[in-house]
Amino acid sequence: MTLPARAQEPGTTTTIHTDGAGAVRRTVLPGGLRVITETMPTVRSAAFGIWSAVGSRDEVPADAGASHYLEHVLFKGTRRRSALEISAAIDAVGGDLNAFTAKEYTCYYARVLDSDLPLAVDVVSDMVAASVNRPEDVEAERGVILEEIHMRDDDPGDLIHDEFATALYGDTPLGRPILGTEESINTLSRDRIHGYYRQHYVPPNLVVSAAGNIDHDETVRLVSEAFAEHLRGDARPAAPRLNGAPVPLDPRSVVIDKDTEQAHIIIGGAGTSRTDERRFALGVLNAALGGGMSSRLFQEIREKRGLAYSVYSYTAQYADSGVFGVYAGCQPAKAEEVLSICRDELAKAADGLDDEELERGKGQLRGAMVLGLEDTGSRMSRIGKSELVYESLLPVDEVLARIEAVTPDDVRAIARDVLAGPQALTVIGPVGDREFGA
Amino acid sequence: MTLPARAQEPGTTTTIHTDGAGAVRRTVLPGGLRVITETMPTVRSAAFGIWSAVGSRDEVPADAGASHYLEHVLFKGTRRRSALEISAAIDAVGGDLNAFTAKEYTCYYARVLDSDLPLAVDVVSDMVAASVNRPEDVEAERGVILEEIHMRDDDPGDLIHDEFATALYGDTPLGRPILGTEESINTLSRDRIHGYYRQHYVPPNLVVSAAGNIDHDETVRLVSEAFAEHLRGDARPAAPRLNGAPVPLDPRSVVIDKDTEQAHIIIGGAGTSRTDERRFALGVLNAALGGGMSSRLFQEIREKRGLAYSVYSYTAQYADSGVFGVYAGCQPAKAEEVLSICRDELAKAADGLDDEELERGKGQLRGAMVLGLEDTGSRMSRIGKSELVYESLLPVDEVLARIEAVTPDDVRAIARDVLAGPQALTVIGPVGDREFGA
Repeated sequence: MTLPARAQEPGTTTTIHTDGAGAVRRTVLPGGLRVITETMPTVRSAAFGIWSAVGSRDEVPADAGASHYLEHVLFKGTRRRSALEISAAIDAVGGDLNAFTAKEYTCYYARVLDSDLPLAVDVVSDMVAASVNRPEDVEAERGVILEEIHMRDDDPGDLIHDEFATALYGDTPLGRPILGTEESINTLSRDRIHGYYRQHYVPPNLVVSAAGNIDHDETVRLVSEAFAEHLRGDARPAAPRLNGAPVPLDPRSVVIDKDTEQAHIIIGGAGTSRTDERRFALGVLNAALGGGMSSRLFQEIREKRGLAYSVYSYTAQYADSGVFGVYAGCQPAKAEEVLSICRDELAKAADGLDDEELERGKGQLRGAMVLGLEDTGSRMSRIGKSELVYESLLPVDEVLARIEAVTPDDVRAIARDVLAGPQALTVIGPVGDREFGA
Repeated sequence: MTLPARAQEPGTTTTIHTDGAGAVRRTVLPGGLRVITETMPTVRSAAFGIWSAVGSRDEVPADAGASHYLEHVLFKGTRRRSALEISAAIDAVGGDLNAFTAKEYTCYYARVLDSDLPLAVDVVSDMVAASVNRPEDVEAERGVILEEIHMRDDDPGDLIHDEFATALYGDTPLGRPILGTEESINTLSRDRIHGYYRQHYVPPNLVVSAAGNIDHDETVRLVSEAFAEHLRGDARPAAPRLNGAPVPLDPRSVVIDKDTEQAHIIIGGAGTSRTDERRFALGVLNAALGGGMSSRLFQEIREKRGLAYSVYSYTAQYADSGVFGVYAGCQPAKAEEVLSICRDELAKAADGLDDEELERGKGQLRGAMVLGLEDTGSRMSRIGKSELVYESLLPVDEVLARIEAVTPDDVRAIARDVLAGPQALTVIGPVGDREFGA
């Protein structure tokens, strides 16, 4: 068990572990800013990210969408740079500069050639630490976000995920969309956005992560320079979001009559929280049930019957809650049939998996994890997000060992809990007021 | 200039070039099957692909969608494997197995850990070389493809690209959608699909490519075994698709009244063909005009005015033709305004770029290319596709040199040709019978 960051003396560096060729190191800077890096000496690129411990679940209803709105506004200008200067700096070296907002965190990142790391550190740190949030920029970005909402509304395969979250969690922080609503976005003022920024974007709530052909000490030096005036006081890094009591669910059925070609369906319920030890068993179950082309749902719905093009299961994990869901898109006239197959397969899987499926599910998680860590962006994400939301970072070998250790009984136990629990349902399509009862 | 494959003696191997740590090698097997590999000794994975020189532009109207339909059917079973056995083999090792169909080629690929390369070669080769195309499988897959068409229809940001191709190329092979139409898919018979397979999936029309921590000779040995019974005769590899006379365009305006939240717009016209020397200059122009956040279109439409979330320009290249287009999604009431800004920017850019934009555009292409080649999948795609569609493979350094050599005059010349030519327009949204004239 590695020392948690908030127990580490500011100004010191810890080697968290060494993983194959590279090493993961963490420095806590004065003021509680964490810098965590992973060296990948065989690549020629670097990924650099800054993670903020705030997301849509931190919003009261009047602020709905504020985390994501703020993410947009941070691209609009700092004390030193205009929006054009921010994007031009990274475009000029052919890098990727982007950001995303989740329910529990927000991330800003750049991927560049290794020699351009100093530029990436300077630009991304400037955006996050010295944003000016000018009223006219907040105003212009309001229109952009409303168009992002409209674009989401125009893609039912996207919209249904937001509708499903509401069907499962209701009008609660986890149930509300990350984008906010047209109403909340139209109401959010510049002062509110700026206050949200001042409150949440403080060093103890931020994690800086970098991976690639980089040097830890040099990265720390670059970050220290870029954040210089913000690194004051003896604050320690904030604790991760608490793993409190499970969020109460009130799963409902929501049918949205819409003039689309397909009926889009999600059925699902509670999964495991981010720190639940059963998450590895749920991962294996998810792989076998709807994670690949050999999965039960793909075989039954697409391969044998040709009823859908897209059908899959998925999990989402939060500090104190989680989701297991199944998506399918099909002919509206076949929606009941597809839903009934999904329900049958969920019920059957509640008895567990056969040995071959179990092994295949493990292999799938194992291979996907190893293959997924060859690029600098994935490594940067893994260490940055872990530092923010977990008490400690599991080495890759340890994750692989936990997957390997999953037993048939573990899968049966989680399957019973997850698949036999109350399920929410969302259907979007030209289905009038049809019922899709249990 | 490397020897083209069809001039290379079957049974021999050529080193095409060495690129940094690795090397690109090609072996022509008996029967005209090409195997091209790129070694990346610092990674732990391998990407393996088989490219067929057939795509939707090879279809007569009655066969519309046959290339893509066949791509689906090849996952359904071989003489040795059921559909489940195909997918289970790759899922069990956590690999990705997938395929895509383009207008001029089709690709089947797997990405796996390096130690699983023999498995990937065996499975993908079996799918491509020994498919049985059973009537009942063709039947089941018909429903899947119809659902893929419906899913496309439900996402206007996707649909508009197909509609735009038709507006630009009309009812010609390049203008018809890769997916086919509901009518053509409902009509295609098993015999027709199977005949298409027998006709096009022959060794001279196939290229096998692999990249990663692999050995050329070992890969050739694995492919020779997997294709054993197909490697007969003294056929030579087929020539690349001919770079004939430019395809005549008849750009039209198509307005589709649809009940969506946004108006989705594409305006564009002829770009450069795949072998046109001006393609590097067009790449720089595209980057500066709509390729990144610092581009003119992004700045004018999103950054300054907040009119769109998604706005970008793009190019597509074919053997004898190409496209340059601009997409924007906006409020329906603002469609004329957004379109007018796009037209103004296209007209202004016809005078060329300023020096800073030119340098930034070059940097963007250069960085994106280098960053994009760190993963095995991109490398496999680059060498496989190049082998199929070009007479020779340009080393990365040569591509970078051509980008660097682009002059302001080159950009002005291509801008005049591309941006001042006749433009097609497609609008999808709740716009009634509004006119969007020039």
